[in-house]
Amino acid sequence: MMKQDQTRTPLFSTLRKHWESGPLTGHVPGHKFGTVFPERGLEYFEDILKIDATEITGLDDLHDPEEMIKDAQELAAGLYGSEATYFLVNGSTVGNLAMILATCTRKSRVLVQRNCHKSILNAVELAGAEPVFLPCLFDDELGVVTSISTEGLKQALESISNIDAVILTNPNYYGLSIDLEEIIGMVHEKNLPILVDEAHGAHFVAGDPFPKSALALGADMVVHSAHKTLPAMTMGSFLHVQGDIVKKEKVAYYLRMLQSSSPSYPIMASLDLARFYLASIGPEDIKVIVRSIDMIKDEIDQLVGIKVIRPANPYIKVDPLKLVLRSTNGFSGFELQKALEKEGVFVELADAMNVLFILPLAALSSKHDMIERIKKALNKCEKQVSEVKVALDSFIPFPRNLSQLTIPLDEQQNYQCRKCRLEEAVGEVAAESIIPYPPGISILLKGELITKEVVEYISYLRMLGARFQGNDLLKTNYITTYIREKE
Amino acid sequence: MMKQDQTRTPLFSTLRKHWESGPLTGHVPGHKFGTVFPERGLEYFEDILKIDATEITGLDDLHDPEEMIKDAQELAAGLYGSEATYFLVNGSTVGNLAMILATCTRKSRVLVQRNCHKSILNAVELAGAEPVFLPCLFDDELGVVTSISTEGLKQALESISNIDAVILTNPNYYGLSIDLEEIIGMVHEKNLPILVDEAHGAHFVAGDPFPKSALALGADMVVHSAHKTLPAMTMGSFLHVQGDIVKKEKVAYYLRMLQSSSPSYPIMASLDLARFYLASIGPEDIKVIVRSIDMIKDEIDQLVGIKVIRPANPYIKVDPLKLVLRSTNGFSGFELQKALEKEGVFVELADAMNVLFILPLAALSSKHDMIERIKKALNKCEKQVSEVKVALDSFIPFPRNLSQLTIPLDEQQNYQCRKCRLEEAVGEVAAESIIPYPPGISILLKGELITKEVVEYISYLRMLGARFQGNDLLKTNYITTYIREKE
Repeated sequence: MMKQDQTRTPLFSTLRKHWESGPLTGHVPGHKFGTVFPERGLEYFEDILKIDATEITGLDDLHDPEEMIKDAQELAAGLYGSEATYFLVNGSTVGNLAMILATCTRKSRVLVQRNCHKSILNAVELAGAEPVFLPCLFDDELGVVTSISTEGLKQALESISNIDAVILTNPNYYGLSIDLEEIIGMVHEKNLPILVDEAHGAHFVAGDPFPKSALALGADMVVHSAHKTLPAMTMGSFLHVQGDIVKKEKVAYYLRMLQSSSPSYPIMASLDLARFYLASIGPEDIKVIVRSIDMIKDEIDQLVGIKVIRPANPYIKVDPLKLVLRSTNGFSGFELQKALEKEGVFVELADAMNVLFILPLAALSSKHDMIERIKKALNKCEKQVSEVKVALDSFIPFPRNLSQLTIPLDEQQNYQCRKCRLEEAVGEVAAESIIPYPPGISILLKGELITKEVVEYISYLRMLGARFQGNDLLKTNYITTYIREKE
Repeated sequence: MMKQDQTRTPLFSTLRKHWESGPLTGHVPGHKFGTVFPERGLEYFEDILKIDATEITGLDDLHDPEEMIKDAQELAAGLYGSEATYFLVNGSTVGNLAMILATCTRKSRVLVQRNCHKSILNAVELAGAEPVFLPCLFDDELGVVTSISTEGLKQALESISNIDAVILTNPNYYGLSIDLEEIIGMVHEKNLPILVDEAHGAHFVAGDPFPKSALALGADMVVHSAHKTLPAMTMGSFLHVQGDIVKKEKVAYYLRMLQSSSPSYPIMASLDLARFYLASIGPEDIKVIVRSIDMIKDEIDQLVGIKVIRPANPYIKVDPLKLVLRSTNGFSGFELQKALEKEGVFVELADAMNVLFILPLAALSSKHDMIERIKKALNKCEKQVSEVKVALDSFIPFPRNLSQLTIPLDEQQNYQCRKCRLEEAVGEVAAESIIPYPPGISILLKGELITKEVVEYISYLRMLGARFQGNDLLKTNYITTYIREKE
């Protein structure tokens, strides 16, 4: 790999130069670099619209890059050490869709981590493949799924035929990460591709004390949300590809298919700037950042009524940018979230027990304000669910063994659906996935058998005030199920 | 439909209010409303990042809208007269993908206009359906496909079984539009859905002299690029749905699947503002806009060496915002484009004969400057292809009769590929689609028989300097073809 000048931002700089040249725009977009726009929006939009361009001469083409976009993507590949890095303007969602469509074929099997993002299973469905779920490991302290079990993967690789790919999610939403070296080796021994949704790990390449990136450990494709922990605009992500197992032309083919044919230049430019930002952060900066986070953790731990949660398992590595807090007075995560919001503090997500903060990759400047606001919030915590004890040990009831859908994706279209009261759904097969959002991880999948534990868990989340995405019936305590012939 | 106050912009206004409340952001994106961002980008990004938010309390969820996003979408539906309008943040591409996946099933047939955008055929491929191409009509003056023939559609509807949908593109890229009333009636008589890619007609609802929108004429689904002729940010589009033939839940299902789970709030806010902008344009404003366009056309027609091109067919309606110019001195569209670019004038596209300007939905302010720059450009026109006469009557060689792929999409995976010199490819079947971009319309489709006319047309475009998207081999005069058994 050539030594590159990571201080350059060719994509952003070329856009700026184009605007500064005073072009007359006879092309889309219709706002004509912001000169045609409603007055009331100008304060926020005027500057960015100057670089909201399109594929004219000199501004390259994301779907067939040869100039500034190619240059910017190669700088990103250079920083991450990948063979090819694709800029994504439709989020990590499109990275997950493209990497799976490029590797998985109809009727094949794919080994999937059950606590994956919904886009992973959407991609498997679009590809016409069938998911086989790997056994999960849980962290007793956080109460969340951390990873797959290596034993379970070994068993799956030995017992299941016709596998096209292994798809993992690491770190999880809470920043908990396992070392994938052994797992990647096992998968490559079978000559299978291993695809890693590392959406929350775009900054891991900065090095210790961040967990190791799957890319450095040899994963074939890795997706990074550059908007999650780096300063890219929302929907800006990277898809990295390396090795000989995956065909890069197929990846590019599906990205051309699934991303807008008029991709957003501001989002692409922000990816260029985010890569530059990351490249400019050295070991000394990281020390300062981590020290400022440790200080805030210490201050929070000294507050009454709240504590910082750390994983029970010492083999789990934690991303310092993720901060998990829990009430020590029996308030649920949702109740704590509400109280914080009253003080203008907005967290990434709440679950039954915790709230999750995502901290910036920068020394915390508003630390004092944050502690003051948390203090005030603790005084305002209110019991929403007065009669019900919050079960602090309730886990998502994911299968702990190798499992498959009761009705495969490919056969579901042959079944009729009906609505069913949630409490009466035990033993039925779900015809819709139930997805609390965030984090966007399905706690029940369409095609999955509905167990008593799942019904209890959904009811419990509903009672605590969780939000679900696209589950309209659930608002009235119903769920869609498939009608099966009496056996 | 309730009378609505179209002067409101609930999505944009709520975002602004949230920022002004001084929130402490413990969530993504990583730029934390622009407070963590490289200095060099701030001039352009600082203001927009204040509203680059995510799905926190109060800011709704595009994938399950209940508050400000629902409100903004309903205002758009109210303006357009649709039953449901979905905000798209991945361009009209994702609108085309979702509307086709929601209506077409594996092994079914879909009737498609051959000069459609590549996303239409990508969607048909993803759905596993097979396209049947409707016969095309050409305009002799512009040399482009205008529409399907009503006779051809009638024949197709009578002779082809197992049709799931009819998909049209109207207006075409050059703003040429036909009245779809009769066609929509024919399709609905068969109880089939008619889906219209009206990407270039987001402003048609403003009324005369703009062509009629397919939505007003009863099409089941219509896609609008709000960034093409309205002032939305690039990738901002609308998908409108009406009637009982299409299931809205299926449309929402595929949009949740194909759009980022972290959709861009700036793009959504710009859709809200673009709808407001369009709603605020009255008949008097339109008169002023059209008058200013007519004046510029008159001035151009008085220049030596260039003329405004109008369609030959009087039944074709022309969008006044599209301006087609042609050299009267035998320069190709690509040569004219190059000369204009030297004067800092950037057009939407060039073809063999023409250049296409897209004008704003606003009275032209830089009219004088435009004429001066065009004048200078005309003096600088240079023959790139000195030895070859530019064939001003060369049409895209699309089939003029009902046609299908020689190797259906579903069977292509069973064939091996080889690279073949372009001149030797006549009689072979293409294994890649050849797509000049813009406009992004395939002149040859994978699975299509390669005719002598197509090879000549591709060679001709290459010689003139057209750009192709994703056709790497073509740069060395090769094309990928399928290897067929000797018959």
